[in-house]
Amino acid sequence: MIFLVTDFGLEGPYVGQMKAVLASRAPGVPVIDLFADAPAFRPRPSAYLLAAYAAIGAPGSVFLAVVDPGVGSERAALFLQAGGRWFVGPDNGLLAIAARAGEARVWRAGTNAAPLSATFHGRDLFAPLAADLALGRQPDRDEGALADMVGADWPDDLAEIVYLDHYGNGMTGIRAATLGPDATVEVAGQRLGHARTFSDVAAGAAFWYGNANGLVEIAVSGGRADAVLGLEIGMAVTVGIRP
Amino acid sequence: MIFLVTDFGLEGPYVGQMKAVLASRAPGVPVIDLFADAPAFRPRPSAYLLAAYAAIGAPGSVFLAVVDPGVGSERAALFLQAGGRWFVGPDNGLLAIAARAGEARVWRAGTNAAPLSATFHGRDLFAPLAADLALGRQPDRDEGALADMVGADWPDDLAEIVYLDHYGNGMTGIRAATLGPDATVEVAGQRLGHARTFSDVAAGAAFWYGNANGLVEIAVSGGRADAVLGLEIGMAVTVGIRP
Amino acid sequence: MIFLVTDFGLEGPYVGQMKAVLASRAPGVPVIDLFADAPAFRPRPSAYLLAAYAAIGAPGSVFLAVVDPGVGSERAALFLQAGGRWFVGPDNGLLAIAARAGEARVWRAGTNAAPLSATFHGRDLFAPLAADLALGRQPDRDEGALADMVGADWPDDLAEIVYLDHYGNGMTGIRAATLGPDATVEVAGQRLGHARTFSDVAAGAAFWYGNANGLVEIAVSGGRADAVLGLEIGMAVTVGIRP
Repeated sequence: MIFLVTDFGLEGPYVGQMKAVLASRAPGVPVIDLFADAPAFRPRPSAYLLAAYAAIGAPGSVFLAVVDPGVGSERAALFLQAGGRWFVGPDNGLLAIAARAGEARVWRAGTNAAPLSATFHGRDLFAPLAADLALGRQPDRDEGALADMVGADWPDDLAEIVYLDHYGNGMTGIRAATLGPDATVEVAGQRLGHARTFSDVAAGAAFWYGNANGLVEIAVSGGRADAVLGLEIGMAVTVGIRP
Repeated sequence: MIFLVTDFGLEGPYVGQMKAVLASRAPGVPVIDLFADAPAFRPRPSAYLLAAYAAIGAPGSVFLAVVDPGVGSERAALFLQAGGRWFVGPDNGLLAIAARAGEARVWRAGTNAAPLSATFHGRDLFAPLAADLALGRQPDRDEGALADMVGADWPDDLAEIVYLDHYGNGMTGIRAATLGPDATVEVAGQRLGHARTFSDVAAGAAFWYGNANGLVEIAVSGGRADAVLGLEIGMAVTVGIRP
Repeated sequence: MIFLVTDFGLEGPYVGQMKAVLASRAPGVPVIDLFADAPAFRPRPSAYLLAAYAAIGAPGSVFLAVVDPGVGSERAALFLQAGGRWFVGPDNGLLAIAARAGEARVWRAGTNAAPLSATFHGRDLFAPLAADLALGRQPDRDEGALADMVGADWPDDLAEIVYLDHYGNGMTGIRAATLGPDATVEVAGQRLGHARTFSDVAAGAAFWYGNANGLVEIAVSGGRADAVLGLEIGMAVTVGIRP
């Protein structure tokens, strides 16, 4: 199974062209749209999303991840194996947190495969590599060093809003398992307590909870947290303890 | 074939995770996105959409329907068989109108299957049930009573705007077959006459027509009815006769 | 492989219903969303997009293209074979530029197939035709004349903005291969020079480049060209030479 994580949007021509390449080179392999609205041009918050949501993939799954403001520049392309899954994407930090899932190995992919457009490596470079991995081929080059990946020095948790979802909820880059139910999360000037789920909270109240993929998420029961609290991607959050 | 009807949006991670579950448990079964923009948190208008659009499914099709503001609460999960099709979703009225398609039977699904997240029953509860039905498995529990379903007392037609489409057309919950071509539909202070299709009406004129799935729909030729008429989900419409 | 090019949007019920028809009539044939956001109701700019992006399809691919403001009127439906690919859609110019790919042949499809809704020919007319072509069936009627197609007299390149993408870039209907790197493109009162890709330009600077599908595209490095330059679909562009 191949999962797509991009900032391309679904309605325009970018995801579709990658899928055409995948369907041609790896026919019959299911392709799943996981995120087409990762934070645009921002590999850092996207890296924490990718790591948290990779858990959906069974061993052997391939994550084709492209949030790539540097397309056409000299940045390298990577293959990563971690936690039994494969990841393909640019060396700009996007794969850096997923690399911590255990038993990680990394390879640098050649960017001299012809013909390669200057602006759509998702289609011309990363999709063919992902198709090959989904078919069980192994990288045929020397292994690289994990410590050389961009983002190797980023923290395991990112105390920022990393995603605003369709309902206006704000995900953070903090793993909920690192916090207890007594923890508070302060964001946009408000200190929020924990709840298990929406129906445990009064309508209109803001709270944090551990979402279904293990991230600390900010929500408003029956409302949009992005509008009510003024959340934006990149906004800092602070963890405390209920006094 | 499995049809998805949700308020999840397509670009974020929710529909994709359900598809990953379906592809794993029911490999090779086509999965079709029918609505990812059902009215958010509003099972009642969504129920009339689901009933009208279920006609697209051949006998044996499975509709996986999740508009679920009460996720994590004690509301039950349902299997419904009606009109030769299967429906899986929460017991909040969402399946209530589809249940009227004929020869209906209902079962309550257990919500004690572990592990179950508190906030994503679409992935953890409903998708596995839908996959099983698509493979031909039958519910292995005692049948329930249709009269116990939430929404069992709702009317067959809902005289409200239930959906605003990509072009700004406003669908109502009224079946067009219940009206003659002399009927008028009053909405937002304007009384509208009937037309067969857009090209039968002058540019800029508002009208109602029976849409391709049998619902009364409000449109403006060459324009957006939502903007021109100020349509909103839940707005009342009144049926009359041309004087 | 079947490619969908429409102005239907993905989240509502239109693309899904076409896919249900395709999955029923041509099971196992991959269906790819190429554009669901072609310029709404505007076959002319859409025609230049379709022609440029058709190159993604291998020989034998079918493009199901529906941008159809005249649905329900007497406009004809077309099969087109050009450049080794098939195209199905309304005779309103949408297929006119794709017809110039070489060795083109055209047929008019009957619109008397019952039952046919007045407003959703994408599902009821074009999708069944596309499924048949994908299965290798040939049109079983007399061939038509290319010169009779609406749009037969349109230019090979359209000096207008024909698409605004997810990032705010503005595609034109001009093939980049017709221009040299010394060419300038004037749009919205600004004359822009050429660059190879985003990373070759200072942040915030506007430029034109030949995009990954061969069209002249207007972009701003690290910004949104639609907002910065005020781009809109249909806006004229003028090609010049750097003085």
